Amino acid sequence: MLNESGFIERLRSRFAAQGRVEVGIGDDAAVLRSSSVDHVTLVTVDLIAEGTHFTLPPATPRQVGRKALAVNLSDIAAMAGRPETAFVAVALPRRRGADCALELFEGIAELAAEFDVVVAGGDTNIWDGPLVISLTLLGTATGRGPVLRRGARPGDWLLVTGPLGGSLSGRHLAFTPRIHAAQQLHQTVELHALIDLSDGLSRDLTHITTEQGLGAIVEAEHVPIHPDVPVDLPFETRLRHALDDGEDFELLLAVSPEDGQRLQDAPPLGVTVVHIGEVTAAPGQCLLRSADGREEPLTASGYEHRF
Amino acid sequence: MLNESGFIERLRSRFAAQGRVEVGIGDDAAVLRSSSVDHVTLVTVDLIAEGTHFTLPPATPRQVGRKALAVNLSDIAAMAGRPETAFVAVALPRRRGADCALELFEGIAELAAEFDVVVAGGDTNIWDGPLVISLTLLGTATGRGPVLRRGARPGDWLLVTGPLGGSLSGRHLAFTPRIHAAQQLHQTVELHALIDLSDGLSRDLTHITTEQGLGAIVEAEHVPIHPDVPVDLPFETRLRHALDDGEDFELLLAVSPEDGQRLQDAPPLGVTVVHIGEVTAAPGQCLLRSADGREEPLTASGYEHRF
Repeated sequence: MLNESGFIERLRSRFAAQGRVEVGIGDDAAVLRSSSVDHVTLVTVDLIAEGTHFTLPPATPRQVGRKALAVNLSDIAAMAGRPETAFVAVALPRRRGADCALELFEGIAELAAEFDVVVAGGDTNIWDGPLVISLTLLGTATGRGPVLRRGARPGDWLLVTGPLGGSLSGRHLAFTPRIHAAQQLHQTVELHALIDLSDGLSRDLTHITTEQGLGAIVEAEHVPIHPDVPVDLPFETRLRHALDDGEDFELLLAVSPEDGQRLQDAPPLGVTVVHIGEVTAAPGQCLLRSADGREEPLTASGYEHRF
Repeated sequence: MLNESGFIERLRSRFAAQGRVEVGIGDDAAVLRSSSVDHVTLVTVDLIAEGTHFTLPPATPRQVGRKALAVNLSDIAAMAGRPETAFVAVALPRRRGADCALELFEGIAELAAEFDVVVAGGDTNIWDGPLVISLTLLGTATGRGPVLRRGARPGDWLLVTGPLGGSLSGRHLAFTPRIHAAQQLHQTVELHALIDLSDGLSRDLTHITTEQGLGAIVEAEHVPIHPDVPVDLPFETRLRHALDDGEDFELLLAVSPEDGQRLQDAPPLGVTVVHIGEVTAAPGQCLLRSADGREEPLTASGYEHRF
């Protein structure tokens, strides 16, 4: 039997304050110190809930903890940032007991260590509802500063950092957030716009194109389809999976054609880039069939919750 | 009918980026800029959940939104800090619809405006579970820096900023976070230790005394009992309410006897301080009966969740 204060004591000894963190878990607020003259803080928060973003089982508490941090790391990657400190608020199901909760935090701890992230605070609640984790991740900008969703220009190349689709068969619990890829790309070329693919390419593309008064042409045959999408399905079905499934957590970037060519010819070490289309001045998203030059509307049909 | 992206659009126009916030709601992460040479960031997060921290009704969604921010403001007050930016992650019950969600954010917005807090980001989810709000609040230190839970010294006076007990009859949804009181006190005297009373005086006192290897004597007759505790109850019952109920969100501070006397004689404008006892070198918490000088153990019996 473990109560909230006993649990917090465990977390405090597991996650010691270090680096920028002067005061971590155990006071009223964490204290972070920065001594650069012009400090940019990046902040992202994602809440994942049992039954909506994962199911226990097949997911394990450790995988869920990992995912709670991973989706936030992906958001910091999408700003070409460097993650620094995490804050974990949880509603823990009483019936699952303390072991589930400790496993959850191990999943967070393992991925945090991989990315030099310090867990510096949080809020622990035990309740009779399902497992809910809200993780806030703070980071800092790298290189020329944060890369936003806005900034793409007509004629820009659109690139993705890996194959898409089929993530929900298991990859969504184990993907590698593209922190390193984003920093490498940011160092190599001028990224005009950057976003991570969480809701599906067809939907996330709108954030850097139609929402900015621009359009896009995506070449159907160039969209990389992940092996997680069964190969025995018809091509059109596989393509829709790649366009709409979501939870890919690859990056989508817009760069000048020259930079796009440069990245394609000599990508940074360990970074994959696939040229999937172009930004257009005319609003609207199109899917281009290279076989016959036919264009069809690319509708945003990724998953979206409604009231 | 409102979907997640429509809802986020509403929030984006309601909460514009301003001040330190260069990029607010609508990108992958918020971008905050600070230009001081030695910047201290305070970070706190609190998650409140339907059925555990509030019930709808009697609470209204607006009150719940207000409370989600207020409890975090109280944590920043407990560091004598200045709140700056809030990030709101929500799991919204589908069956309550968009109106409930919009009311919730109005409650946040109203209190945010009162304390110059900018809502700079968040995560909106619609699900079939109860209402869950996880709010992360960033702030900065004031004066001589953040005031921690550790730092009390034997002989220090213990003071509280207002009457205690009975909060759950309604005050817990409408209390004023002691941001201004904390800053005023921090400016006037040297605060050795500071904490906000969320779990009840008897429990929260342990964080600044027994957990630091110290003890405390609290004078029973000096503990201010809130009028929300029914006056027709026996004194001992009323006292226990004041000691244990929790959710008071007043501040508990430890200062030198000289500073304590000074605060008592001439409190800062608009700030209440009540001298309730002293810090002792001997560990353990006692309740002193001034009538006969009798001491009894003061056990921490505030509310605590267990697995």
